Amino acid sequence: MKVEELDTPVLMIDRPAFDRNIARMAAFASDAGIAYRPHGKAHKCPEIGRIQIEAGAVGLCCAKLGEAEVMADAGIPDILITTGVIGWTKIMRLINIARQARIAVVADDPDNIADLAAAAQTAGLKLDVLVEIDVGQGRCGVPPGPRAAELAALIDGHPWLNFKGLQGYQGSVQMCTSLAERRQAVADALDRLNESADLVRKAGVGIEVLTGGGTGTSVIDGALGGLSELQPGSYIFMDTNYSAIEWQDAPTPPFENALTVYACAISRPAENRVILDSGWKSISGDGGLPVARDHPEANFRFAGDEHGELSFDGASPLSVGDKVVLIPSHCDTTVNLHDRFIVTAENEVEGIWEIAGRGRSQ
Amino acid sequence: MKVEELDTPVLMIDRPAFDRNIARMAAFASDAGIAYRPHGKAHKCPEIGRIQIEAGAVGLCCAKLGEAEVMADAGIPDILITTGVIGWTKIMRLINIARQARIAVVADDPDNIADLAAAAQTAGLKLDVLVEIDVGQGRCGVPPGPRAAELAALIDGHPWLNFKGLQGYQGSVQMCTSLAERRQAVADALDRLNESADLVRKAGVGIEVLTGGGTGTSVIDGALGGLSELQPGSYIFMDTNYSAIEWQDAPTPPFENALTVYACAISRPAENRVILDSGWKSISGDGGLPVARDHPEANFRFAGDEHGELSFDGASPLSVGDKVVLIPSHCDTTVNLHDRFIVTAENEVEGIWEIAGRGRSQ
Repeated sequence: MKVEELDTPVLMIDRPAFDRNIARMAAFASDAGIAYRPHGKAHKCPEIGRIQIEAGAVGLCCAKLGEAEVMADAGIPDILITTGVIGWTKIMRLINIARQARIAVVADDPDNIADLAAAAQTAGLKLDVLVEIDVGQGRCGVPPGPRAAELAALIDGHPWLNFKGLQGYQGSVQMCTSLAERRQAVADALDRLNESADLVRKAGVGIEVLTGGGTGTSVIDGALGGLSELQPGSYIFMDTNYSAIEWQDAPTPPFENALTVYACAISRPAENRVILDSGWKSISGDGGLPVARDHPEANFRFAGDEHGELSFDGASPLSVGDKVVLIPSHCDTTVNLHDRFIVTAENEVEGIWEIAGRGRSQ
Repeated sequence: MKVEELDTPVLMIDRPAFDRNIARMAAFASDAGIAYRPHGKAHKCPEIGRIQIEAGAVGLCCAKLGEAEVMADAGIPDILITTGVIGWTKIMRLINIARQARIAVVADDPDNIADLAAAAQTAGLKLDVLVEIDVGQGRCGVPPGPRAAELAALIDGHPWLNFKGLQGYQGSVQMCTSLAERRQAVADALDRLNESADLVRKAGVGIEVLTGGGTGTSVIDGALGGLSELQPGSYIFMDTNYSAIEWQDAPTPPFENALTVYACAISRPAENRVILDSGWKSISGDGGLPVARDHPEANFRFAGDEHGELSFDGASPLSVGDKVVLIPSHCDTTVNLHDRFIVTAENEVEGIWEIAGRGRSQ
């Protein structure tokens, strides 16, 4: 089946570009001598998780238990939950996943650590726990400093918990456009993480893993060498935001856009513009506007839940029924609007990958 | 089960408020002597569609075929597809739905009208078709004037098509804050629709339906009396945007917020703020920021796909594990992120309604 024959709007993966991204991250991590654990929140798709593991990833990250359940069910053997798991109903689910896969979870709260220990004890298993440090993002985590060592010692002291290490994710610098500024921000974040790591070690607690980083900082983190594990998510797909940051000094070539939404012109209300069948419900707007890949001169405007507008300076080259490839501004939130990826190669449809974790926000 | 026991993030309907909204629209339409056909894109839920029909709605609107398929499968007897259905694969699906329910579809393109006629002929049935007029939104539709009459005559001349009337939806004025300005914009839109309707009638083609309007203009459209059918969607749920417009001069009381996302504080990185387990993947941001219902003084910030931040001027009244009710800024796109509504009444969970049309953007 040809791509042009696909009904729209539909989410597509360009398999050759995707495979090159997979290979580049594997080569980069191997060259830098650093482990990587791709973030499953970017794709929510067990098929992709398996491809990443086969390429050399040490496991997957998941943002939510629902994603981890889907990945563990599909046989992904090693999962880090990158956000605290709060409350006994969720901890019960965490324990269930820990019977299927090796599970680690981050924590930043002593009461939560006590709950995790009680659940692990009653289940008769041992949970890996990392302390989350706020290395600059201003989101979850304890501030760098003595608090990290206190929590590490608390975890280390519980017979049913295994203190695994520290997580320091600096999400807000991933898309810092300037490579020099991004490099400085990463170095600052790493200093904060190392400050906490030193205090943990001084408290007599060993550290196995220092995890953090993302697609935008992966090449910098690799060169700096401070982390033991990277958490890149978007590198497999890329989007207009990640493509717009400076990469040229990086030791590896940039990743390529491999994720698009295929849309169709359904009305041509004026010579210079067409209305597409894709709006906020099929391509996300939280990261800005999508771009029409083959019409970079066109202006995209969201025209509602299910409508987008492409306008041109002169006459629109698109008529009613013509299809158009849109590059999302934010891959993660666009993926979460769809139930499946259509995998394509050189204009042919190759297969379907279910986004089994779609909408699993609990 | 108590609401506090629900896992988060979760989408909730306050059933008493929802029922009052249903009753108010029914009473308003009855008083105004106008038919109404609620827009199913707001809820994508057959259960709600049935409740609306039972309350007196003449049928449902759907934005997409996927929504219409779900509604027809659930026994909704009368559906208007409010966007053109382009291409033979989609027209084939439209014909299939037309075997289950009474279907009408809008069109604004002569080639599309020819395709619809050919499909109806080969299927041996008669399709209701409306011409869409762009009455000011700048989206789909022909401009007001002679083009409408030409298309109406074209439809009327096809033995397998039934020209049903005109659609003129002015989406962009629904949330115009000023009631006076909104009233003027509605009057202008109605003038444009009537101009086209007069030309259609002069061409000897009868008009059964003039459809348009939404939640924000329903009370105005009802008073003006120019439309024969209204298309309100959000009235059942309301959101912060619709609640912020002026309603006080309206002949009926405003509708109430009945849709919320229940979230949980998962981290308290500082005295004055907590991190919630809800971000762009569980509450939409295209309409602005959600509001914490019981903490209107708090500032909400999106902190990623799965995180939100609530910050306070002084110490946060919320601690880790505490739950919070968020009112979405845009109900339609928030609903599309979830698989089901949890129906609640006075803090008790009453039931579950599946959002069967979620993600059905094709």
